Amino acid sequence: MAQKPSIPKGTRDFSPVEVSKRNYIISIMRKHFENYGYQPIETPSFENSETLMGKYGEEGDRLIFKILNSGDLFQEKVEFNLKVYNKLFELINLTLKDSIIGFCNELSDNRLVNQREVVDESILELYFDKNHLNNALLFFNTKLKKSRTFNLNNKERLYEVFKHNIEVYKRIVVEFLLSSEINIKDLKNKSYSNKYFSDFVDELVTNIFYKNHKSLNFSHVISPQISEKALRYDLTVPFARYVVQHQNEIEFPFKRYQIQPVWRADRPQKGRFREFYQCDADVVGSTSLWLEVELVQLYDSVFAELGLNGVTIKINNRKILSGIAEVIGASDKLIDFTVALDKLDKIGEEGVKKEMLEKGISENALEKVQPLFNFTGTIEEKIEKLSVLLSNSEEGKKGIEELKFICDNVSKLGLKKAVLDLDVTLARGLNYYTGAIFEVAAPKEVAMGSIGGGGRYDDLTGIFGLKNMSGVGISFGLDRIYLVLDELQLFPETVIGSTKVLFLNFGESQAFEAMKAISALRNQNIKAELYPDAAKIDKQFKHAERRGIPYVVKEISNDLFTLKNLKTGEQKQTDWNDLISELK
Amino acid sequence: MAQKPSIPKGTRDFSPVEVSKRNYIISIMRKHFENYGYQPIETPSFENSETLMGKYGEEGDRLIFKILNSGDLFQEKVEFNLKVYNKLFELINLTLKDSIIGFCNELSDNRLVNQREVVDESILELYFDKNHLNNALLFFNTKLKKSRTFNLNNKERLYEVFKHNIEVYKRIVVEFLLSSEINIKDLKNKSYSNKYFSDFVDELVTNIFYKNHKSLNFSHVISPQISEKALRYDLTVPFARYVVQHQNEIEFPFKRYQIQPVWRADRPQKGRFREFYQCDADVVGSTSLWLEVELVQLYDSVFAELGLNGVTIKINNRKILSGIAEVIGASDKLIDFTVALDKLDKIGEEGVKKEMLEKGISENALEKVQPLFNFTGTIEEKIEKLSVLLSNSEEGKKGIEELKFICDNVSKLGLKKAVLDLDVTLARGLNYYTGAIFEVAAPKEVAMGSIGGGGRYDDLTGIFGLKNMSGVGISFGLDRIYLVLDELQLFPETVIGSTKVLFLNFGESQAFEAMKAISALRNQNIKAELYPDAAKIDKQFKHAERRGIPYVVKEISNDLFTLKNLKTGEQKQTDWNDLISELK
Repeated sequence: MAQKPSIPKGTRDFSPVEVSKRNYIISIMRKHFENYGYQPIETPSFENSETLMGKYGEEGDRLIFKILNSGDLFQEKVEFNLKVYNKLFELINLTLKDSIIGFCNELSDNRLVNQREVVDESILELYFDKNHLNNALLFFNTKLKKSRTFNLNNKERLYEVFKHNIEVYKRIVVEFLLSSEINIKDLKNKSYSNKYFSDFVDELVTNIFYKNHKSLNFSHVISPQISEKALRYDLTVPFARYVVQHQNEIEFPFKRYQIQPVWRADRPQKGRFREFYQCDADVVGSTSLWLEVELVQLYDSVFAELGLNGVTIKINNRKILSGIAEVIGASDKLIDFTVALDKLDKIGEEGVKKEMLEKGISENALEKVQPLFNFTGTIEEKIEKLSVLLSNSEEGKKGIEELKFICDNVSKLGLKKAVLDLDVTLARGLNYYTGAIFEVAAPKEVAMGSIGGGGRYDDLTGIFGLKNMSGVGISFGLDRIYLVLDELQLFPETVIGSTKVLFLNFGESQAFEAMKAISALRNQNIKAELYPDAAKIDKQFKHAERRGIPYVVKEISNDLFTLKNLKTGEQKQTDWNDLISELK
Repeated sequence: MAQKPSIPKGTRDFSPVEVSKRNYIISIMRKHFENYGYQPIETPSFENSETLMGKYGEEGDRLIFKILNSGDLFQEKVEFNLKVYNKLFELINLTLKDSIIGFCNELSDNRLVNQREVVDESILELYFDKNHLNNALLFFNTKLKKSRTFNLNNKERLYEVFKHNIEVYKRIVVEFLLSSEINIKDLKNKSYSNKYFSDFVDELVTNIFYKNHKSLNFSHVISPQISEKALRYDLTVPFARYVVQHQNEIEFPFKRYQIQPVWRADRPQKGRFREFYQCDADVVGSTSLWLEVELVQLYDSVFAELGLNGVTIKINNRKILSGIAEVIGASDKLIDFTVALDKLDKIGEEGVKKEMLEKGISENALEKVQPLFNFTGTIEEKIEKLSVLLSNSEEGKKGIEELKFICDNVSKLGLKKAVLDLDVTLARGLNYYTGAIFEVAAPKEVAMGSIGGGGRYDDLTGIFGLKNMSGVGISFGLDRIYLVLDELQLFPETVIGSTKVLFLNFGESQAFEAMKAISALRNQNIKAELYPDAAKIDKQFKHAERRGIPYVVKEISNDLFTLKNLKTGEQKQTDWNDLISELK
């Protein structure tokens, strides 16, 4: 009954080499985060569901991994369901009885119809199988044959009544399946009192008749019921929660960084994982634009030390986008506009305009934003063009001002390797960013797209009740940075800190001598190992080669070590000091 | 609608200071793990449920956090439940009808009873509320008043029939609530065909009548149904899975370390958390006892560098425990025996023996193990005593041999700070360790107990189909080590790498000069910050104090910096070079 081992879709094992390379990237981020005064925090892998749900839009909610409440609750749940169950069937019974009696009373010549019979039988039909609707209808027809005035019209209405009842029935059951779980918690407080259940049932009925069925978002409704915890979806909401929860211990402005995994129930696909690291640096509690300046420098510092040339840090400002929306007089078309404009290089001005018109952006609007169609030149020139374009938009002008401050100071302070560029098509996080918007593009020669992003969001912590806290931050995409460095072979060889020397094992007494030397080497921080078993020599040599261990000590006799360099093949006898200097 | 933010029971936020201290411990472990040739791997936070379930015993299974399948499945589940539902009620209907008709037929003078009526009404009663049993009985009584031969005896039997029906009803519903979820998976393969459902229902009925209700382990049954993934419970099972899954890429013997969080749905309590880090070093693929020797040294190296004096590494061997069990002729009493023996210091020899006798260990057995009651002296002396005691136990002798090899070599190689001690009462992991057993005791002056443990387990990977792979490993208890170091104030001050210098902000032009200097300092890896806003001076000073920033630059004029040391209060003008040397 051995299982063929595997891991869940969208997750990964990391081999020693991969872990070492990832830690190399992380250690460089960490170093610069701290040079810039950002302090590390860590938050739990799972948060209370209330903390996360509703913060990422409906789609986001669906992608949040929910954690099942631990076992014990299920006994209760089942008992509880049994009770709700009975109540609900009383309810179903009444609902159906009433509506059908109601219907029968309305039937033109109901004298000919034996109501009771109709009612009971039809109830049974409905109980035992909602799919028996047709039989039920058939049955009614035979009953109603007797009725002279029975006609299509009645049949239609009959059909309606049934359809309605089925709906009621279905919804009650659906609601029950969900709601009976919702109330596990209440269960603990409120006892099984009948009062409680009748209230509960009343509530249900109200829902059933006044709630549009479609509006039931299952994934949303289900989550708090059998699950009260959910895995972290990003690092921003937990950070906001952290700030509010610990506001009295925190000295503001608070610069924090956080490097932890997040989880998303995305459809797994190439380069998209269900568990991946986020590396965020954020400041909360200051509106100073110097922070935007600093964050651009921080991006530059990290990518420079990683040896990554040709990184472009794109910047835009939410207020500029709003300004453009004003100008084109269609804020709802803003995304269509930026998406189309972004294709300028590919499909040319005409192509872009064509697409914009198709999306319902007016000729007139296009004329107004004509400057954006040859939006080239230095940042200064671009800003110049924008200030003309947005001269009538108060918000737009504010955005240009902010942008100007950031870009001027960044260029005056200078960047090591990266290039800062203004990209008015940059519209990421449009629904929460309120000021600067950042995105980092990998070097052109690697087709990787964005390797980082961020921006300014006023009222970061409002959702948790702490108002007027502006936040600005950036995020590094560890997985993609890894792929870029790998493709460009920018990982230093030293990253994989493999063992430096393997001592061969010829049996106990010699192995002891080896262990003495090994312990001493380890005290000098030289990575040394004994081959644990006295196996065949060539097997031991192969082990060293396969492990990429450069040196082997073959023999130790009167304090002399026979050291072999597996790369050069050269072999020599060394005393202790030579051995160390050789291996250092 | 702002929420009062909080985190789940048993989880923790880590402040900058706490993270820094934890990373300090981890970095030292990491360094020594790698000096000893152990390579880092990482595995996903959640594994497929099959990988984890059944590996930790029933208790363990209950404590595994299960992850809810993502939203989409619930729609299916609900539809599915609706269908099962209807089938089940047909079934209930039949069951009850039959048994009641059966009963009525048997009623002595059934002519007087209107069967149909009785049946239908009673069915309704049962449907709508199983608690209506009494009303139902009442109702029957009135019906049966007419029957002259009606007597207590009938009434009893009637009651029986109903009680039985209720049971059937209840169990069907319970089974349904569970089974309807069990089958979400099948749902995908088998269609909604009626055949499928009738099979399903048949199966249910069989269960209902032949399965003992108690035997349903809910937490276990429920888990694979709405959840196919579970959070890592420890690092050992994922490691075993990793080894088997990647056996072709791995060069054996494989020395790996892994430092990652694990999750357990334990009742939260002081010092026990639902999310905590494990730090494991294991070797798989060799039975060499040199590995046990090395692991003792590894413990010593880490705790020595952490500056922890008075650590005791306790060692024992499973085979010795088996030997002792042989000698006392009661392997089932082994735990009772070790637990009692462990109290020797507290309750003395007589107390221990009293407890052992109470536990059913024979006088005779106690005489045999008399040596264990003054089991003092050096390891060598203890081993000597054991070899006499276990001279007739093959397994026991093997255990002593192993123990002797490890202890002799460790003492000949020497330890830096820790003390190795043989503790025959050490019986941790008795159900999986097969050879050496380790446990590390914190220094006596801190009441912390075990801060690490491990041992040898043959056939580590057998559960996943890779036989004959012996493994040996140790684990470090990060949280407890943290508490010990904190209590003994062994964290170096430098651990909290707070910012070195804060530049005050007097507005744009001066702030720009500051940013120039700050960028240059950061390039020298000196942690420097600008106070982001041009706030009141004393507010900016307070910020530096609260943040524990030792230096403040108050002013910059013609390349001279007014530097204030907040500890000494001393203030001076420095040029660039002095500034750097001051802050380095």
